[in-house]
Amino acid sequence: MTGPYRKIVEVLNGKTVAPPPIWLMRQAGRYLPEYRETRVKAGSFLDLCYTPDLAVEVTLQPIRRYGFDAAILFSDILVIPDALKRNVRFVQGEGPQMDPIDVSGIGNLEGESVLGHLAPVIETVGRLRQELPEETALLGFCGAPWTVATYMIAGHGTPDQAPARLFAYRHPEAFEKLLSFLAEISAEYLIAQIDAGADAVQIFDSWAGVLGEREFENFAVKPVARMIEIVRSRRPQAKIIAFAKGAGLNLLHYRQKTKADAIGLDWSVPLFFAAELQKDGPVQGNLDPMRVVAGGRSLEEGIDAILDKLGNGPLIFNLGHGITPEADPENVTALVRRVREAGV
Amino acid sequence: MTGPYRKIVEVLNGKTVAPPPIWLMRQAGRYLPEYRETRVKAGSFLDLCYTPDLAVEVTLQPIRRYGFDAAILFSDILVIPDALKRNVRFVQGEGPQMDPIDVSGIGNLEGESVLGHLAPVIETVGRLRQELPEETALLGFCGAPWTVATYMIAGHGTPDQAPARLFAYRHPEAFEKLLSFLAEISAEYLIAQIDAGADAVQIFDSWAGVLGEREFENFAVKPVARMIEIVRSRRPQAKIIAFAKGAGLNLLHYRQKTKADAIGLDWSVPLFFAAELQKDGPVQGNLDPMRVVAGGRSLEEGIDAILDKLGNGPLIFNLGHGITPEADPENVTALVRRVREAGV
Repeated sequence: MTGPYRKIVEVLNGKTVAPPPIWLMRQAGRYLPEYRETRVKAGSFLDLCYTPDLAVEVTLQPIRRYGFDAAILFSDILVIPDALKRNVRFVQGEGPQMDPIDVSGIGNLEGESVLGHLAPVIETVGRLRQELPEETALLGFCGAPWTVATYMIAGHGTPDQAPARLFAYRHPEAFEKLLSFLAEISAEYLIAQIDAGADAVQIFDSWAGVLGEREFENFAVKPVARMIEIVRSRRPQAKIIAFAKGAGLNLLHYRQKTKADAIGLDWSVPLFFAAELQKDGPVQGNLDPMRVVAGGRSLEEGIDAILDKLGNGPLIFNLGHGITPEADPENVTALVRRVREAGV
Repeated sequence: MTGPYRKIVEVLNGKTVAPPPIWLMRQAGRYLPEYRETRVKAGSFLDLCYTPDLAVEVTLQPIRRYGFDAAILFSDILVIPDALKRNVRFVQGEGPQMDPIDVSGIGNLEGESVLGHLAPVIETVGRLRQELPEETALLGFCGAPWTVATYMIAGHGTPDQAPARLFAYRHPEAFEKLLSFLAEISAEYLIAQIDAGADAVQIFDSWAGVLGEREFENFAVKPVARMIEIVRSRRPQAKIIAFAKGAGLNLLHYRQKTKADAIGLDWSVPLFFAAELQKDGPVQGNLDPMRVVAGGRSLEEGIDAILDKLGNGPLIFNLGHGITPEADPENVTALVRRVREAGV
């Protein structure tokens, strides 16, 4: 079965596409005036995620403006704890908060109602696939178990996820149970997104960088490998990108061990190392988002360095982290143009 | 000239000492009841740093309690911007704050009065050397230019130093000037500490981990190499530890390029990579501070893994970051005992 030609899917199949396809993490976001306009129509941030009309609209906005090669479902990694009734709320200026979970709370978790709770998100995926241009890939996503667990345990964001690290040392069995549980329900959630029309899914392990060697293996590699195993056992053609932010040298065997099709690279990954990793398989990244804010020469230099080192292999051009609200939309225009004109 | 036998100095000379010497970053700190008792006698945190009677007392407290192989001067990396009249203040529960600097502010920086302002800190170093046991090494320290600059530009701590990264992209010349300026005065400050009796000094680049490949070279490697060059040109015997936290694979040639005697390793550095780095020279680290909070088996496992992988080469046992206020002082006793009994 051959689907329509979508550059990002080609790259995920190991092909080199020149110029490389491009999308940006958090491309539907506050740097866009049209996003801010839609945002005020939703009550809370979660309302925006759970209202298909609005979520479809903000997902499509950057596609209309820039013609990115992929749209990424507008949602948040914390819809999973929200579906688990952890009382998730996004407080303006304070970041996400939820009721912290303890050992007995982990024992009482049950995932039966999760997919029902997330039905509006799945509906959004289906409607997006219908509305997107034929050539635009649609990406679904979820958080990796470790990263989602860090928020569930602390009840909020922290600089280095010390509460989750400590909990894992103190309660290794309960913590492993939490990670396994999250891996299972997250895999189900990804399968639902794929069935609704996602061409590929990305697993965000945004806090992989605070883990030591053994913990990276146990908390970052194993649960993500398990998720991918579940998804592939049921949807053998599924395309999966795994993004372990800040993982540094731990990325060395990450793709092989997790069996992801491609790995995401944050902006701190040295390009010589990125080129090594690319010999093993497709990579995605890794422009410093601050270069998009700065614009001009520093933006051009950053783009050119990536294209120079990674452009001759399977590459999905992206930022090394989400685009920030201060980015000038004109700089994104310049970014897309420069990537698309590369090597032409 | 042969000084008294101090294990840490031996390791900094490239020797393997078994069991390895041990000290802990932030060992004089809030986890100790005697520290908290002394702390209330000082008005502000900076008063504590600038009052030799009190700074000497808190520096000695962990030596009395645990007999660490090194005492580290009680001070803060932000005494440099304080000496530069940036109005530094430590606000309880909010972290450090100062007046953010801009391009014209960088043009107006002048370092003449810095060493005068820091005279009480230098006095503390001298008094410490007199009061410490003969076998205990005394460590001085300062922040690396990049890390100090991140605070000076943002005016406060941030999760990923986006303001400084952006400033560096937008104003490369002014930023380079700031780093050069900080390298020069910090080198002078280290020389004064060495002259007052410090056996070795540590340069803390706590925010090296947020830099891309080229920026790591320009903002982390070059200024630290310059500092070390200045110090060595005037004090050829100076012993220097460079700690680039979160630097990951960028640590590969960091010691060679900076000419540090030893490099510090944070807890996220995989031990197989640490062992590679140790082939080139002494390493320091890298237990996860949360293991000290957790205690018990997870503390023992963390210690044993480090001793197993790094104990047969030049190693200074330490944490991978500062000890935290929640750590039980009894767990530190257990930590020191286990390291000292290793291989016995």
